[in-house]
Amino acid sequence: MDAGTANEIFLSAIKGMRRSELVSVIDATGRVLAKTMVAPRSVPHYRRSAMDGFAARSVDLIGASTTNPVILQVSDMITEGTCVPLSTGDQVPDEADAVLMIEDTTPIGGMIEVRAQVHPGKNVGEIGEDVRKAEIIFYKDHLLRPCDIAVIASLGVDEVKVYSRPLVAIIPTGNDLLPLEEKEVPPPGKTLDINSLMIGKYVQKWGGIPRYCAIVSENKDIIEKTVTDNLDADMIILSGGTSVGDRDCVPVVLDKLGKKLVHGVGLSPGKPTALGTIDDIPVLCIPGYPAAGLVALFEFGKGAIRKAGSIPYTPDIVVKATLSGKIMSREGYLSYARVILKDKIAHPLMTAGAGILSSIAKSDGFVIIPENVEGYEEGSEVNVVLIE
Amino acid sequence: MDAGTANEIFLSAIKGMRRSELVSVIDATGRVLAKTMVAPRSVPHYRRSAMDGFAARSVDLIGASTTNPVILQVSDMITEGTCVPLSTGDQVPDEADAVLMIEDTTPIGGMIEVRAQVHPGKNVGEIGEDVRKAEIIFYKDHLLRPCDIAVIASLGVDEVKVYSRPLVAIIPTGNDLLPLEEKEVPPPGKTLDINSLMIGKYVQKWGGIPRYCAIVSENKDIIEKTVTDNLDADMIILSGGTSVGDRDCVPVVLDKLGKKLVHGVGLSPGKPTALGTIDDIPVLCIPGYPAAGLVALFEFGKGAIRKAGSIPYTPDIVVKATLSGKIMSREGYLSYARVILKDKIAHPLMTAGAGILSSIAKSDGFVIIPENVEGYEEGSEVNVVLIE
Repeated sequence: MDAGTANEIFLSAIKGMRRSELVSVIDATGRVLAKTMVAPRSVPHYRRSAMDGFAARSVDLIGASTTNPVILQVSDMITEGTCVPLSTGDQVPDEADAVLMIEDTTPIGGMIEVRAQVHPGKNVGEIGEDVRKAEIIFYKDHLLRPCDIAVIASLGVDEVKVYSRPLVAIIPTGNDLLPLEEKEVPPPGKTLDINSLMIGKYVQKWGGIPRYCAIVSENKDIIEKTVTDNLDADMIILSGGTSVGDRDCVPVVLDKLGKKLVHGVGLSPGKPTALGTIDDIPVLCIPGYPAAGLVALFEFGKGAIRKAGSIPYTPDIVVKATLSGKIMSREGYLSYARVILKDKIAHPLMTAGAGILSSIAKSDGFVIIPENVEGYEEGSEVNVVLIE
Repeated sequence: MDAGTANEIFLSAIKGMRRSELVSVIDATGRVLAKTMVAPRSVPHYRRSAMDGFAARSVDLIGASTTNPVILQVSDMITEGTCVPLSTGDQVPDEADAVLMIEDTTPIGGMIEVRAQVHPGKNVGEIGEDVRKAEIIFYKDHLLRPCDIAVIASLGVDEVKVYSRPLVAIIPTGNDLLPLEEKEVPPPGKTLDINSLMIGKYVQKWGGIPRYCAIVSENKDIIEKTVTDNLDADMIILSGGTSVGDRDCVPVVLDKLGKKLVHGVGLSPGKPTALGTIDDIPVLCIPGYPAAGLVALFEFGKGAIRKAGSIPYTPDIVVKATLSGKIMSREGYLSYARVILKDKIAHPLMTAGAGILSSIAKSDGFVIIPENVEGYEEGSEVNVVLIE
């Protein structure tokens, strides 16, 4: 199945987050509002001067100009022919309907000469002009940015209702895997479980909470038990054991416990990816090879975690670059070609052999080649999606 | 001064981070390597099979084909005419130089029929093929992504030397400001200090550590003392008090204590920004109006924090959109026009009056209009920089 269709099927099977929680506003950056928020106050909450200058009555200044200046008496209250000095942010007296900029006046003893007329409302921020009390400030499902946090806090709100972060259970499978905590060089035939940490750190980055499960051997019963034990999570990611082969039992377990929606996608690397649901919980099975697993995680995991957490989509960071060499796609596959980016030049990374570790460490981004394109020639301008 | 020149002058006055610290690999996401890292091990650290299949000697299979299959004896050791079954990731016996894919073989009792010849090295990951011991894995100044963390951990490394995060002192100035903690509606003429929290959350987002200072009134001596007290920080951001006016004493203090490099930039909003250094510490003075302060922070703060922390530049997220209405720039100013983004349409935000709170809360991004461009017509395709 092509990657686009697989993604559509998978995403449409994922429901949004149903749990929410109250968090302190100052800890709410990156969280998503679970409830539309209305302003508990007006801003400004008083008639506010937008300038340093003098509050006055516009009616007293009709016709004022450089050739025909008007004289006002400086006072501490507004009556006919008086003005009150104030600074930006000060309250404008009720009787005044305008603020004169200091630049348009000249002091003469206890008076000022005014050289410009003003229209009613000039430089006065009326109550609620910026935000009216009870006005909607943010809709439900809004992702809170630092500037939003400040806005909410300034309205006197100290807690907000946000969606709970999606809990993502990460289950590494493989007979040859050892926990990353092992500090000795593993014996021949054994490999450290690099994927769990990689997946977990991306889960965090994308707004979820990782739950690291112990390594599971490639045995259907044990995998089934581990998956069943984690059905309290909002999503499950299994790594390894996804190929069609004797030992590759992860998709079989998915099929038995729930719905296997997709197995095998036109994604290179990442073909043996499987997608499905168990009891409404999305299950993503990615290949055990870290490079392929990373691509499958980017292609399917990011969107799925976002959807499961009701976290709005954020576009990837993409930069334009010129290819320093040809890159080939795998025919009929959505192909992620790894590139090193330097001064707007994208250098294709030749990945000989398994190319597991070094290809991840060395690449800055992916050039993603659609299924119907054979590749790109040297000198082509391409979009590079940065590896975040 | 134009914004580009101001930024160049400011950035060239900022030195990189000189302190570093050891952190646990699993906590190092988003940190920057202070030391080039070499691989303490080879990967693979043994001769690794890249396939499920049989280890064999390529010399025994010369000429093998579908019409001329070769028979090998399945064994637990490699000699002439034998093969050893193995799975992906298993160790390949020393005497074998290739691994046959299971798909190219047919079992016949204790033997297999092989229908394809293999070249020496086929499907064998040699020791160090991916990463050679003592090879450079990451250079100094590399920003560690989740996938890098996994790579480093898989090499048995548990601590990395990274630059310390830059400490950024945030000093709010203003006679009308009240701390954000005040829960009551402020009295007329008083405003909650929204800027400190906004600046602090962006400082964190961009890799720094905020130090929130108490509100300082617009008095040169008190500002001077507060700035002096914070010269242990890696950067100082003052908000408010930057206009050229009676009370606007922040730039004056900057000039007295250090070097005022820039005061007043062609940035709209954000004109009264001042930039300088005191004892090699970058000092950024941004306008007190939150919308103007936000623009100044994006234009000057992000790059400065990155430079002070030796954190590599990451491009902004930019999306293309079509304007639903005309936007105008301020002539001769680099203008940040706020827009609401919906389905690839950018709706200009009309910001009447002070437009402080609502304009920030409602906008999704900025269309940045260069100094020499008057604006953009309705229907223009524009780049929208998302507000992060």
